[in-house]
Amino acid sequence: MSTNELAELRNKIDEVNLQILSLLNQRAEIVQEIGTQKEKQGIIRFDPVRERQSLDLINENHNGPFETSTIQHIFKEIFKASLELQEDNHKKALLV
Amino acid sequence: MSTNELAELRNKIDEVNLQILSLLNQRAEIVQEIGTQKEKQGIIRFDPVRERQSLDLINENHNGPFETSTIQHIFKEIFKASLELQEDNHKKALLV
Repeated sequence: MSTNELAELRNKIDEVNLQILSLLNQRAEIVQEIGTQKEKQGIIRFDPVRERQSLDLINENHNGPFETSTIQHIFKEIFKASLELQEDNHKKALLV
Repeated sequence: MSTNELAELRNKIDEVNLQILSLLNQRAEIVQEIGTQKEKQGIIRFDPVRERQSLDLINENHNGPFETSTIQHIFKEIFKASLELQEDNHKKALLV
């Protein structure tokens, strides 16, 4: 592989990174919407059953090359960050 | 928000999760290709300068609602998992 070929593969990675970034932020916007609505209805934000269902769906659709445990780990980090985002919004709402 | 509306937002989240999953695995395939080629050329796998450049590009294109530090954290987990994938492939190659 020439230096150019390596550069090309790296460009592909950068493109995929930016697509993942865009989806993470789209996801965060939906999560915020859910959080606001739950807030109004006084429903608790963290729902372990729902998290388990989400992970199960992800596992069913996962076919490598990452290990299932790796995919689970990455998504748990995303879920955790999303919950923190809802909590931050909640705190900001209290300060208004 | 009715229960149906909550279900609809959750369906949207599930769709986005599966798109992220697909991109993570596409990314992993490119990473494996890079790893194999680097292996052949005897180049070291972990390149902190390249990782920094990737994160900088992500930060430049990030516009919320997640905090930049959260996005960095998630991508660092993805990078770590990708490096482990290259290392696993390397070990498997040694056993052949």
